Amino acid sequence: MNNWYKSLMDTLTNSNTWEDLGITAIRIVLIVVISKLIMWVLHKSLDRIVLERASKHPPSQARRMTTVGKLVKNVVTYIMYFILFMLLLSEVGINLGPLLAGAGVVGIAIGFGAQSLVKDILTGFFIILEDQFAVGDVIQTGTFKGTVEVIGLRTTKILSWTGEVHMIPNGMINEVTNFSVNNTLAVVDVLVAYEAHVDRALSIISETMNQLKHENLVKRPEVLGVQLMSATSVTIRVTGECKPNTHHMVARVMNKEIKDALDRNGIEVPYPRMVTYQRTYEEG
Amino acid sequence: MNNWYKSLMDTLTNSNTWEDLGITAIRIVLIVVISKLIMWVLHKSLDRIVLERASKHPPSQARRMTTVGKLVKNVVTYIMYFILFMLLLSEVGINLGPLLAGAGVVGIAIGFGAQSLVKDILTGFFIILEDQFAVGDVIQTGTFKGTVEVIGLRTTKILSWTGEVHMIPNGMINEVTNFSVNNTLAVVDVLVAYEAHVDRALSIISETMNQLKHENLVKRPEVLGVQLMSATSVTIRVTGECKPNTHHMVARVMNKEIKDALDRNGIEVPYPRMVTYQRTYEEG
Amino acid sequence: MNNWYKSLMDTLTNSNTWEDLGITAIRIVLIVVISKLIMWVLHKSLDRIVLERASKHPPSQARRMTTVGKLVKNVVTYIMYFILFMLLLSEVGINLGPLLAGAGVVGIAIGFGAQSLVKDILTGFFIILEDQFAVGDVIQTGTFKGTVEVIGLRTTKILSWTGEVHMIPNGMINEVTNFSVNNTLAVVDVLVAYEAHVDRALSIISETMNQLKHENLVKRPEVLGVQLMSATSVTIRVTGECKPNTHHMVARVMNKEIKDALDRNGIEVPYPRMVTYQRTYEEG
Amino acid sequence: MNNWYKSLMDTLTNSNTWEDLGITAIRIVLIVVISKLIMWVLHKSLDRIVLERASKHPPSQARRMTTVGKLVKNVVTYIMYFILFMLLLSEVGINLGPLLAGAGVVGIAIGFGAQSLVKDILTGFFIILEDQFAVGDVIQTGTFKGTVEVIGLRTTKILSWTGEVHMIPNGMINEVTNFSVNNTLAVVDVLVAYEAHVDRALSIISETMNQLKHENLVKRPEVLGVQLMSATSVTIRVTGECKPNTHHMVARVMNKEIKDALDRNGIEVPYPRMVTYQRTYEEG
Amino acid sequence: MNNWYKSLMDTLTNSNTWEDLGITAIRIVLIVVISKLIMWVLHKSLDRIVLERASKHPPSQARRMTTVGKLVKNVVTYIMYFILFMLLLSEVGINLGPLLAGAGVVGIAIGFGAQSLVKDILTGFFIILEDQFAVGDVIQTGTFKGTVEVIGLRTTKILSWTGEVHMIPNGMINEVTNFSVNNTLAVVDVLVAYEAHVDRALSIISETMNQLKHENLVKRPEVLGVQLMSATSVTIRVTGECKPNTHHMVARVMNKEIKDALDRNGIEVPYPRMVTYQRTYEEG
Amino acid sequence: MNNWYKSLMDTLTNSNTWEDLGITAIRIVLIVVISKLIMWVLHKSLDRIVLERASKHPPSQARRMTTVGKLVKNVVTYIMYFILFMLLLSEVGINLGPLLAGAGVVGIAIGFGAQSLVKDILTGFFIILEDQFAVGDVIQTGTFKGTVEVIGLRTTKILSWTGEVHMIPNGMINEVTNFSVNNTLAVVDVLVAYEAHVDRALSIISETMNQLKHENLVKRPEVLGVQLMSATSVTIRVTGECKPNTHHMVARVMNKEIKDALDRNGIEVPYPRMVTYQRTYEEG
Amino acid sequence: MNNWYKSLMDTLTNSNTWEDLGITAIRIVLIVVISKLIMWVLHKSLDRIVLERASKHPPSQARRMTTVGKLVKNVVTYIMYFILFMLLLSEVGINLGPLLAGAGVVGIAIGFGAQSLVKDILTGFFIILEDQFAVGDVIQTGTFKGTVEVIGLRTTKILSWTGEVHMIPNGMINEVTNFSVNNTLAVVDVLVAYEAHVDRALSIISETMNQLKHENLVKRPEVLGVQLMSATSVTIRVTGECKPNTHHMVARVMNKEIKDALDRNGIEVPYPRMVTYQRTYEEG
Repeated sequence: MNNWYKSLMDTLTNSNTWEDLGITAIRIVLIVVISKLIMWVLHKSLDRIVLERASKHPPSQARRMTTVGKLVKNVVTYIMYFILFMLLLSEVGINLGPLLAGAGVVGIAIGFGAQSLVKDILTGFFIILEDQFAVGDVIQTGTFKGTVEVIGLRTTKILSWTGEVHMIPNGMINEVTNFSVNNTLAVVDVLVAYEAHVDRALSIISETMNQLKHENLVKRPEVLGVQLMSATSVTIRVTGECKPNTHHMVARVMNKEIKDALDRNGIEVPYPRMVTYQRTYEEG
Repeated sequence: MNNWYKSLMDTLTNSNTWEDLGITAIRIVLIVVISKLIMWVLHKSLDRIVLERASKHPPSQARRMTTVGKLVKNVVTYIMYFILFMLLLSEVGINLGPLLAGAGVVGIAIGFGAQSLVKDILTGFFIILEDQFAVGDVIQTGTFKGTVEVIGLRTTKILSWTGEVHMIPNGMINEVTNFSVNNTLAVVDVLVAYEAHVDRALSIISETMNQLKHENLVKRPEVLGVQLMSATSVTIRVTGECKPNTHHMVARVMNKEIKDALDRNGIEVPYPRMVTYQRTYEEG
Repeated sequence: MNNWYKSLMDTLTNSNTWEDLGITAIRIVLIVVISKLIMWVLHKSLDRIVLERASKHPPSQARRMTTVGKLVKNVVTYIMYFILFMLLLSEVGINLGPLLAGAGVVGIAIGFGAQSLVKDILTGFFIILEDQFAVGDVIQTGTFKGTVEVIGLRTTKILSWTGEVHMIPNGMINEVTNFSVNNTLAVVDVLVAYEAHVDRALSIISETMNQLKHENLVKRPEVLGVQLMSATSVTIRVTGECKPNTHHMVARVMNKEIKDALDRNGIEVPYPRMVTYQRTYEEG
Repeated sequence: MNNWYKSLMDTLTNSNTWEDLGITAIRIVLIVVISKLIMWVLHKSLDRIVLERASKHPPSQARRMTTVGKLVKNVVTYIMYFILFMLLLSEVGINLGPLLAGAGVVGIAIGFGAQSLVKDILTGFFIILEDQFAVGDVIQTGTFKGTVEVIGLRTTKILSWTGEVHMIPNGMINEVTNFSVNNTLAVVDVLVAYEAHVDRALSIISETMNQLKHENLVKRPEVLGVQLMSATSVTIRVTGECKPNTHHMVARVMNKEIKDALDRNGIEVPYPRMVTYQRTYEEG
Repeated sequence: MNNWYKSLMDTLTNSNTWEDLGITAIRIVLIVVISKLIMWVLHKSLDRIVLERASKHPPSQARRMTTVGKLVKNVVTYIMYFILFMLLLSEVGINLGPLLAGAGVVGIAIGFGAQSLVKDILTGFFIILEDQFAVGDVIQTGTFKGTVEVIGLRTTKILSWTGEVHMIPNGMINEVTNFSVNNTLAVVDVLVAYEAHVDRALSIISETMNQLKHENLVKRPEVLGVQLMSATSVTIRVTGECKPNTHHMVARVMNKEIKDALDRNGIEVPYPRMVTYQRTYEEG
Repeated sequence: MNNWYKSLMDTLTNSNTWEDLGITAIRIVLIVVISKLIMWVLHKSLDRIVLERASKHPPSQARRMTTVGKLVKNVVTYIMYFILFMLLLSEVGINLGPLLAGAGVVGIAIGFGAQSLVKDILTGFFIILEDQFAVGDVIQTGTFKGTVEVIGLRTTKILSWTGEVHMIPNGMINEVTNFSVNNTLAVVDVLVAYEAHVDRALSIISETMNQLKHENLVKRPEVLGVQLMSATSVTIRVTGECKPNTHHMVARVMNKEIKDALDRNGIEVPYPRMVTYQRTYEEG
Repeated sequence: MNNWYKSLMDTLTNSNTWEDLGITAIRIVLIVVISKLIMWVLHKSLDRIVLERASKHPPSQARRMTTVGKLVKNVVTYIMYFILFMLLLSEVGINLGPLLAGAGVVGIAIGFGAQSLVKDILTGFFIILEDQFAVGDVIQTGTFKGTVEVIGLRTTKILSWTGEVHMIPNGMINEVTNFSVNNTLAVVDVLVAYEAHVDRALSIISETMNQLKHENLVKRPEVLGVQLMSATSVTIRVTGECKPNTHHMVARVMNKEIKDALDRNGIEVPYPRMVTYQRTYEEG
């Protein structure tokens, strides 16, 4: 015990021990100071970049830029603190190798299991950054269609027109169709019987469409012509450009008007047809 | 043997041995103390964060926050004990490298096999944290629809309306549709024959809907108009906003009322129609 | 050769050699003793946890808990022996690094190939632990439905009602539907012709259902109303709550009774209908 | 050149060189001896385990156990020789690190490419061990159904009833349905017209089934009742328990007998029905 | 404390310390200088390659080449700065090993989660480099068809003809069909009744097509012949080569012209046909 | 410069330098000699194994065995040379670690990208080794069916009966169906009208089949019985065992003979049937 | 500062420093010389292999061989320069370990993201090497069919017969069907009514086919016989071997000729048939 006490004292009074500690102390101070410096520089640069970019864009864009800027700043700060923490531990002389190797086995399982979480967040980040859609837009992704309610980092909430809320992880949002950006096209396919004169049907529909007025219609509907000749009817296609995402409403109005016009003009309805050959049956 | 005994004694009485032990002892004490300190700080911070957040939210949210807080505290504690254990082993001088490398081969298999387990738990955590759905909500995920019975960390139990219990691993719950958040829309498509006057059918349905009363109806049903003109009938769409997840019940009532009204007013039922051309058959 | 012999002797008589051996011996003894201690503590804790939990639950649950406890104890023991073995090899001075690195190449192939095996066992463990289904339950997973015969760690055997045995790896059992937990609902959809008075049909079915008695029926069947108005018929839905997994049997009885009642009351059968327009054919 | 020769001689006559060699030699001998010992112990234990287990099971099971035992013994031997070889190379002083790292790049490609091979063999091993099916059984896996001809470690051969040979890698055999374990159920669905009295049809079928005799029938066929009421017919379900995998044959006999009985008793055949409404066509 | 101060002073006045610093300083300067040199050489080479290639191609190609060149230069610069930064840290004596190992666990999750992001950017790079499609082209990828609006590094925006905007991650763009490169073929299938003389129908269609004139038609439409003999009609196929992506418009014109010609010449319309055998029904 | 020259000379004349070189030289020679020895032993063993096995099998099998043996010998030789090359580089003192680590980043990409290539070759090896099919066999894998033309290590070429060549990577050949191993079964399903007496039809078909003679028929066709009772017809199944892959041809002959026999005996053709109920239409 | 200057001078004038530099210099020179040597040997060997192989094959094959040879030479050169560069850096004393470890994290993401790129290039290489198809061939892969326009290392361009260009990454080209290698078979299925005498129809078709002449027909078309007996018609199959990829054209001619012949001989067209049973409807 004397020995133990003595050797400890020796160590503490040994100049080499203190020399080592001195160098370590200097290193630690240097690391902290330099880290803080780098973080300060990074924050300033990010602020400047965001400011510069925001000043060049309309206010709505600028707001999104600020959001993204804040997010990037947070992420950078967390990473810098993580690096700083690891460097300090390493300086203090705690060997992190085995610890981390041990975490590696668990890490594979977590890494694989968490990959969809990471993908969700990364995709969420790009949805906001690239402004793919905004709250209030009508979008479709996969089989889910509705009005965007919330765009989160991990999930996006879409409100279906029948009232259900679809919650979709961002990583599942691969291909998005946005109905709220451009004018949409109301497409109406009118079936006309073979017996009817196609020219007359075309001119009646054309005339009706020219007189059609609707607040959501941007241009006069256009009669494209004979789209298809099926076994029992001729299909005439009519399209009408209307305000974003109002095509269902406009198509309903067009449907009604065309039906009325064809009725008034006696254009035949193309019920399914069949030619029957009657035969007397020879008993088996 | 003398030699062995003597060398052991030499080692034990050698001051360097004790000096090493002394340093190790100090390091171990330091590690334990610092670990405890870090854990105490982490726990306090977590408590404060949860408290702060909970005070800003309604009680129902606060309860969830406490649950998540407890979970995070447990996980943090386990991780800290794991790190502490590894550091102590490493200080004692047991080389964990080969052990962990050996575990690595097995670890790949386990890591890959366990990834869906990890994904289940991570997704379960986010379902609770993000409040995607609560017990008692009617949700649909994939082909499974029903009332949520239990939300576990690994599996969620859903009770189908016909009585079966669906047990779904949380990792399989990608896209969720929640029927219990908003009012839902009862959609009824009424088929009317081409011969009938569409205007009259529209006004009859409209009138009937205006007089419809039902405890679950939030607003008067709306007649949208001519949704589709198919080969043999005209489809008129009627929608009625009703309380969450009562649209099946309301639609049944609307079906009944519309049928009665159309019957009373003699609006023709759109049976399938066909035009037949009779021909005498020239024998082959 | 003399040199060789002499140097070997030198080594053996050198005190440093023995000193090293002495330290190694002490370390080995320490490792074994501590390992045994840790294992003893772990086993005792596990036993206590299982006992505590089992005393709080009904006997059927307790039995499952014991099974899981035994399994966990086995796994813990194997892991401890593996760690002990690796540590001893490492102490003896056999460098396992290259060996394990060599195994790594093979390990990737095995790890990837074995991942579904690991997933099978992990899922099997959770099926038992979470009591998702028991032997004798009627379950469906994917396209396979039947009575559970055996729940193994790797595979589950399900007996189809037509006699085939389905053997399913547990890792393939993602979403399970259990028919044996709650009462199930027999759903009967009755088609009634448009010409029939729906009100009368509803009252006849309602009356019949009120008089229906069956040992498996838990409550009186309920007539929900007009579920659907298709082109040629009106669908009336009737549901009857019955004991778990007896809905097929009850539905057959309900089918028979409703058919008889409708027959007796002359409610028209909704054969497919068609309106035909005869036309003379102008020869082409 | 003199220098070179001299230094080589110095090395060879230096006692340290020989001392090192001596220690290495002892280590090598020890490694070989211990390896052989471990292998001997492992083989003996495996033999004893197999013998013990085999004595508790019927002979057919015992034979499979011996097969599996031999396989395990081979695998263990190969692994032990691989470990021994690596340890010896390492003792001789050949640094395997770079070699193995070099192999790592290639190893990833091979590991990933070979994973399905490993999965095939692992699954094959479990098919034999768990006795999922035996040669001669009729099984179905995925879309392939037939009699098992050969169960190999990598592939299983199934003979279709029309004569084709299906070769399926074991890793593709996930869910297996075995038709040769239990009695199977012949299911016959008889369509009866709505006009027929269901009660009479039920009693005629019931009577016919009671008189049916067939060598493969285990029990009298059972008439379950009205399975379905479709638009044009009533479906009556009859089931007959028969010897494993003879349900196709038995169902054919039941089909024939029921048809004859219904013919004799004049129960109407449910041809598709349709109600036609004739209308004069107003020219368009 | 005296000791500590003294040992620090000793270190600072020790010539070896400064010697080490000197070597490190020289190495750092060398590394920076050489890095700058390599980057300068790389930039010059890239500029020269782009210039050389651009001079050999038409201006439109040259512009794309410049874009790609700039991108490559940026990427190279970032990589060089990253390498430089790591080398300097390593020279200063900061051990990055544990830091990076720690990042490894997180890295797996991020690496897996980010793989689709990397794939998006790589594919985007190749879409631009290989000029698969340009802004304004009409393309189809998967189920999305429309006019290309924007080709970004991560996503491509396609404008559907009905007005929706499809946003598709480049990594999802596997197989692309480009409609704007070559002349497209308008394909019209004309159904003719079996009773009609096929030869006459062929000659009438042929004649009509010879007289057809349309600004988008590149060549006279070709009558290929009898494509199919189905149960009730003969299909005659006509094709017309027209300007890129105008086939829908041209097909509509061809449809109209052929219908008019067949009408004028009395070629029979192939309504579905059926031979009916009337039988008196023996009551069941 | 003098210094430089002098120190180099010192090094070259220093005995330690030459001593090191001497040991290295001996080691290199030893490595080369032992490698050659191992390769010689491996080649001899492989030859002996192949010879032994080939002598036990028929010549056709023996030829395949030789092919596989040569392949294995080549692979073993390449691996040995690769190991030898790496060991020599390592002996010469070139540190391969960083080189290989650098290759690792690229290696992951290549490894993942090449995995399907490796799988192709491994599967190809097993197709040859296990003799799953031979050139000239008619096989089906996935949706591709035809005669095997070439079995390569990476791809297999199959000649469709209509003349196309299918090239399939071996890794895509999972489940193979071979039509050329056993006799195949021609299956003919004869539809007979409900009005016909099934017994008479059965006896007529049976008689016809007994008189049927065809070079490819191995046994007399068997009449299995009533396979199905559908809504409008009774299905009688007839099967005929014939030589491998001639079932299409034989079925055509059986079709023809049965049709002729039924015609001669006036067994009724089961045209689709329908019961029509005429009703006068009440105008809507 | 004096100290610093002095120690630097000491280092520079110290003979050990120069000795080290000398050895390094010699090693660098050796590495460069040996690398160049190996590259020269590799290039020569590759040239010789290509020349040898090319001389044994027809010119068309030889040209492809040269292309592949050049590619392999380029790849080998790049790899050698990469190895050389890494070795030199390592000799100069720059520690690449941390740099490469840092790149590892990024490497995983890139490696996974780039795997489809690597697969594209590898598959492209094998498509060229194995000559699976050539420019101008008509191929089908997946749902894309057309004439091959360009075979690139990453993508293949296929020109559809209607004018669209399909761009397919080579990695997506798994199973290829080549229509341009062998003669193809035009398959025509002729439907004949049950009432017609099959023998007569067979002989008429046979006669017509014997007289058929077409530049693309390689052999006389063959009448296979009765392919199918469906509910309403007998199917007679006729096949005609014709030049590669002309089967559509030839089938059209065969269709026309057979229709004319059957018309001339009054063989009945198999319109769909139905037996109708009229019943008077009992009012419900």
